[in-house]
Amino acid sequence: MQVSSRLGQVPASPIRKLVPLAQVAKAQGKQVYHLNIGDPDIQTPYVILDRLRAYEQNPVGYAHSQGEAGLLEALVGYYRGLGYDFIDKSMVQVTQGGSEALMMALFAVAEAGDEILVPEPFFTGYASIAPLFDITLVPIPLSIDTGFHLPDQQVIEDLITERTKAILYCSPNNPTGTVFDRQEIELLVRLARERNLFLIADEVYREFVFDGREQLSLLDYMRDLPDRIVVLDSLSKRYSVPGFRLGMMVSMNQELMAGVLRMAMGRLSAATVDQVAASALNRVGKEEIWAVRDIYQKRRDVVFDALSGVDGVTIQRPEGAFYAVAGLPHEAEAFCAWLLTDFHDNNETVMLAPMPGFYATPGKGTHEVRIAYVLEVPKLQRAMEILAKAISAFT
Amino acid sequence: MQVSSRLGQVPASPIRKLVPLAQVAKAQGKQVYHLNIGDPDIQTPYVILDRLRAYEQNPVGYAHSQGEAGLLEALVGYYRGLGYDFIDKSMVQVTQGGSEALMMALFAVAEAGDEILVPEPFFTGYASIAPLFDITLVPIPLSIDTGFHLPDQQVIEDLITERTKAILYCSPNNPTGTVFDRQEIELLVRLARERNLFLIADEVYREFVFDGREQLSLLDYMRDLPDRIVVLDSLSKRYSVPGFRLGMMVSMNQELMAGVLRMAMGRLSAATVDQVAASALNRVGKEEIWAVRDIYQKRRDVVFDALSGVDGVTIQRPEGAFYAVAGLPHEAEAFCAWLLTDFHDNNETVMLAPMPGFYATPGKGTHEVRIAYVLEVPKLQRAMEILAKAISAFT
Repeated sequence: MQVSSRLGQVPASPIRKLVPLAQVAKAQGKQVYHLNIGDPDIQTPYVILDRLRAYEQNPVGYAHSQGEAGLLEALVGYYRGLGYDFIDKSMVQVTQGGSEALMMALFAVAEAGDEILVPEPFFTGYASIAPLFDITLVPIPLSIDTGFHLPDQQVIEDLITERTKAILYCSPNNPTGTVFDRQEIELLVRLARERNLFLIADEVYREFVFDGREQLSLLDYMRDLPDRIVVLDSLSKRYSVPGFRLGMMVSMNQELMAGVLRMAMGRLSAATVDQVAASALNRVGKEEIWAVRDIYQKRRDVVFDALSGVDGVTIQRPEGAFYAVAGLPHEAEAFCAWLLTDFHDNNETVMLAPMPGFYATPGKGTHEVRIAYVLEVPKLQRAMEILAKAISAFT
Repeated sequence: MQVSSRLGQVPASPIRKLVPLAQVAKAQGKQVYHLNIGDPDIQTPYVILDRLRAYEQNPVGYAHSQGEAGLLEALVGYYRGLGYDFIDKSMVQVTQGGSEALMMALFAVAEAGDEILVPEPFFTGYASIAPLFDITLVPIPLSIDTGFHLPDQQVIEDLITERTKAILYCSPNNPTGTVFDRQEIELLVRLARERNLFLIADEVYREFVFDGREQLSLLDYMRDLPDRIVVLDSLSKRYSVPGFRLGMMVSMNQELMAGVLRMAMGRLSAATVDQVAASALNRVGKEEIWAVRDIYQKRRDVVFDALSGVDGVTIQRPEGAFYAVAGLPHEAEAFCAWLLTDFHDNNETVMLAPMPGFYATPGKGTHEVRIAYVLEVPKLQRAMEILAKAISAFT
């Protein structure tokens, strides 16, 4: 019995593709340093876990489709604490992770057959979700040589067609670690205004901006373009709770938010217990999140300092999030597999994500890998040492 | 800025539409008996809540995309405990509630523009999810007069077109409480075989079958039609944990399960904490679930006995789940609103779900309401007394 042809178009996660090889490596007794997946190792704040363990409500009923009242209130408080005083509950929809926020946003702005521009490389989830709704992601080509920053306005404008409905970007970026500066964000805002497009920002790494850079958000421009701006957000990275599957969408476009709430009714609610626990986020201060940022920044230094000295490696100093992309002198897919199947240093090896899966354009990223620095500094140092040896050993 | 036209096609939940009126009624000091939503009031088993409160893993990381190992094992154990020894882990996908199982199944079997037959009335979630993927639900018309059982084979066959890809049914049924008998299920299995269709069963109320009826499952036929059968399931009703948002899809069609796993990778995982807690379901015996079934059966008796004696009311004895549909001498939308805005008996009233929202065909169910019996017997008796008074008082 034939499944639908569109099911065949949903790609496998390129991040999880090497998992079977890692399992074999581990069965052989190798220790594998996992730099392949953005699963934070930083502790979840105790106030949140304590709230979870104190859960009392029995039975565990549905939450409201828009979100549990306590969590919505905490989220409004979070945005206001960042200075966005205009945010109220009607502009926030709680989602099942950032993934569902993305899903709802894409469906809300584009018809079947429409196009959305996305700086490339981009988070693999975009490529998983767009085919569900017959949306074409049109890459805005970025290069490792310019630190994955935006090209000239004209390059972007030339990609806009009658079917272009939106620009979707992620800053601080997964997979590149690039942070768009004010000029770049204002370029996108200008394009949205002039070319009549939605502008969707994925800001799940919002606070993780390094070296004293300005922490920018598309929320800064929301009142200027109230109907065109959609912000996708998540608790996963900020509070180290990816397993809660809680994210949010923020927009002042009332028709869009009403439609998104109807979509939310169709899946009834996000997880109740997790929402109750997460509502304790109002007891996690900015300083605590910035302390986490500082941890990631130190690790960034470890990765950058180690790899920038390795022969044949191209790397720009990552500006945020917790990822780095390195250009290698080797074919990345083969190298990442070989790391697990053939290489070891003192019975240890590393697992990385090959970059081709983060590009929609065939043939791009073939010699690039993504490194997620979700290990403590000593382990990360050792992992970089192993990686450097592997790069020179690979033939 | 215009949202997509398809966003406009996602309907609001008819179950939740009257909520603002209920809020006003409560603000006026009225007590409202909620019979409008299938949110079980039965306690969640302690073994599950204890496992939840003992959650230790920090940080709360992603689960596997297919499902947390402990939960998958518990689910396989559950199905084998029902006698389905052939079920193994490869046939089970953990989903974010039954809703996501439905979403994945519809996408997996139908192209844009395809049709799926569904006995009507049907669960409102189907109508919310089908437009996401441009799938048309074609109603198989049922009638309250025949207890919402299937019509003759020919009636169903006449609805099959070149675009029909599947038949989707729910038994025990939400909203009708009807349980299809062996003959009906075998009719659908035969149609799937002869007309080359997928057959998708929503069995989230599997154990809630009354009066000693045979507890049937499409799993009984899965090995006969391994590529065509998909079973949708959920923990929500069986274990009174709708707030966990955990469901599952079961199929032996390997291509379908592989595609569904790719879809699951796109949203990373279901909620980790909830999965860990739910893995304690292997400590909840069949007898405990049957005890819950017996509670619902007693309530069914209260509802049926009370309403079958009321002038102008049509009701068939529900056979399972925890719903009853009653035909009224009044227009249901107006009556349900009036119950909240204008009626009270000793300052108490009831909230029901008008049935038109459960029909795709305009003009159907206009004089029917759904009653979810999710209240203890004494409250339910009082609610039925109020309802009977209201029916005769409405003008």
